[in-house]
Amino acid sequence: MSDIRFEKIALIGIGLIGSSLARVIRERRIAGNIAVASRSSETLERAHDLNLGDSYTTSATEAVRDADLVIVCVPVGASAKVARDISDTLKPGAIVTDVGSTKQSVIEQMMPVLPETVHFIPGHPIAGTEQSGPDAGFAELFDGRWCILTPIAGTDETAIDRLTGFWHACGSMVDRMDPEHHDMVLAIVSHLPHIIAYNIVGTANDFETVSKSEVIKYSASGFRDFTRLAASDPTMWRDVCLHNKDAILEMLARFSEDLSSLQRAIRWGDGDKLFDLFNRTRHIRKSIIDAGQDVDVPDFGRHVAQTEGHGEDTL
Amino acid sequence: MSDIRFEKIALIGIGLIGSSLARVIRERRIAGNIAVASRSSETLERAHDLNLGDSYTTSATEAVRDADLVIVCVPVGASAKVARDISDTLKPGAIVTDVGSTKQSVIEQMMPVLPETVHFIPGHPIAGTEQSGPDAGFAELFDGRWCILTPIAGTDETAIDRLTGFWHACGSMVDRMDPEHHDMVLAIVSHLPHIIAYNIVGTANDFETVSKSEVIKYSASGFRDFTRLAASDPTMWRDVCLHNKDAILEMLARFSEDLSSLQRAIRWGDGDKLFDLFNRTRHIRKSIIDAGQDVDVPDFGRHVAQTEGHGEDTL
Ligand SMILES: NC(=O)c1ccc[n+]([C@@H]2O[C@H](COP(=O)([O-])OP(=O)(O)OC[C@H]3O[C@@H](n4cnc5c(N)ncnc54)[C@H](OP(=O)(O)O)[C@@H]3O)[C@@H](O)[C@H]2O)c1
Ligand SMILES: NC(=O)c1ccc[n+]([C@@H]2O[C@H](COP(=O)([O-])OP(=O)(O)OC[C@H]3O[C@@H](n4cnc5c(N)ncnc54)[C@H](OP(=O)(O)O)[C@@H]3O)[C@@H](O)[C@H]2O)c1
Repeated sequence: MSDIRFEKIALIGIGLIGSSLARVIRERRIAGNIAVASRSSETLERAHDLNLGDSYTTSATEAVRDADLVIVCVPVGASAKVARDISDTLKPGAIVTDVGSTKQSVIEQMMPVLPETVHFIPGHPIAGTEQSGPDAGFAELFDGRWCILTPIAGTDETAIDRLTGFWHACGSMVDRMDPEHHDMVLAIVSHLPHIIAYNIVGTANDFETVSKSEVIKYSASGFRDFTRLAASDPTMWRDVCLHNKDAILEMLARFSEDLSSLQRAIRWGDGDKLFDLFNRTRHIRKSIIDAGQDVDVPDFGRHVAQTEGHGEDTL
Repeated sequence: MSDIRFEKIALIGIGLIGSSLARVIRERRIAGNIAVASRSSETLERAHDLNLGDSYTTSATEAVRDADLVIVCVPVGASAKVARDISDTLKPGAIVTDVGSTKQSVIEQMMPVLPETVHFIPGHPIAGTEQSGPDAGFAELFDGRWCILTPIAGTDETAIDRLTGFWHACGSMVDRMDPEHHDMVLAIVSHLPHIIAYNIVGTANDFETVSKSEVIKYSASGFRDFTRLAASDPTMWRDVCLHNKDAILEMLARFSEDLSSLQRAIRWGDGDKLFDLFNRTRHIRKSIIDAGQDVDVPDFGRHVAQTEGHGEDTL
């Protein structure tokens, strides 16, 4: 592991992703020194209490000084500001990467500001939970998950190799693709699902003839699955929507087109068409399980996990 | 438990729900005798191998003979046929119930056919998984979940009490409502989520510039959650769509209206509106967890459960 070791790693942002990185870096000794930066002193203090790093500062400018690897872990909309904050104090030869959920916009925000003396390699670990903040992180978050790097043409291959080694050490597999393709892929596998989840939970929330307590009581019949994604951080998702607009609008258009066709089949009682539509999606779950990207148990294993949960009888 | 005991219970249909009932009835000794009926001899043989009952037949007509409680556990579209099959051999005074996911249609299908000598009490346990067939069932399925009864006005209260006691013995809490209201509530908490899940998985499946293997590899970023509901039985869901059409179309219309408004906010870059929309759904998950209707762990507890899952590195 010595060849992927960095003397000093700076984490700019110490929420779910930043703190998970801090934990895995510490646990697997990937760096000699971890500098933690967060915007607010509250989050920083919490990071300190959790002993996530070796130094703590609200100044990104300070945190990156002498760092060999800088990982920006803030909502994508804050990328330009962070780039401006760190550009003057970056060590020549340092690798600068990020974990943002959109890539073209992050590149547009950071590239023009960062000095040419550093290796800027945008990245995105495909791993997360619906929680946020420094308490939500854990060292195993990246285990068995993919991390996508979207290097700009001409980037030093040695630097890309070092960053790839870093993600391997964190437990991830690494893939490489164009930023544009990344944004399209993520729009369908991540952004659309989150937006749809937010929307359906919102629709249920607004419904006047079905009470909120009914929605909650009977949520095990399907609805509760969507509430997980819809509990994700609103700032992060606002920024994703603002910074991957075109791809997301394209996915929404396709989704709505397909939904209209399904709706039409329901309206006209076209049972054969409904059966066909519902029959061609089953195999995808099996493929995901076979690829090790979900648990191979019914109901996400929740029946096993859940032994409590007896409520009150209203009859 | 003696007052809720039935001498003989007939289960018409022995899939996920029927076989879960068979298992809990056996385990908690709710009946002296369990008669199992299924349409196909394959399913029936499997039920026999699993030792789910005391007698096995492909004839619903035979199975209900002398039964004190008959539970119809077939796709809702088959309710009329089952009612016709059993009406002549039902024991006077028997309770006839069902587990179908829609209630107005089941009542319309069964009521006119069943003899007046039996107590027909429609029901719907709000419990399930994405799997089907006799192997998928388990005795704990109903534990801590609600079962909704939608009795018709004038139904004998003693019979309703006995059926309520039965569901309590199965581990459920029992609620009572109008069939019409049931169909509206379920359209929002269950039918819409399933339809949306099927639709989004279909949209991703059809996408030409993002490959299926990419969708699978990166599915942990959100998409995989939808594949669970979209792996549900297509026959059951075709029938639900055909038999709760009006309420489902109403929900789809509301959902699409809300989605258009969200889409508009994305198109115009209205960050404040997006933040507000994404911020008002978070509390719902907490309420569901507090009500014991979902597990209180991030990511449905999958990170804990999943220790394997390292795939191949493509870089
Ligand atoms: N959550 C996921 O599932 C996931 C998965 C993959 C990638 N990502 C990406 O990872 C990044 C971080 O997400 P996260 O889930 O770790 O977020 P988080 O838990 O909410 O933490 C965000 C961190 O960024 C800081 N921050 C927030 N707004 C900022 C601003 N305007 N300027 C400077 N710093 C700011 C916060 O500082 P204070 O708390 O001190 O304000 C905090 O340290 C995002 O770009 C997201 O797209 C997330
Ligand atoms: N799955 C859930 O999560 C869930 C939850 C609550 C309520 N429900 C309701 O419970 C009922 C059963 O669902 P399930 O999940 O147990 O289904 P399942 O596992 O697919 O089993 C269906 C059973 O019904 C029989 N059947 C199928 N089509 C039939 C027909 N046309 N005529 C007569 N019998 C037929 C099957 O017999 P063969 O196999 O022998 O053909 C099998 O015994 C449905 O009404 C559903 O709406 C389901």
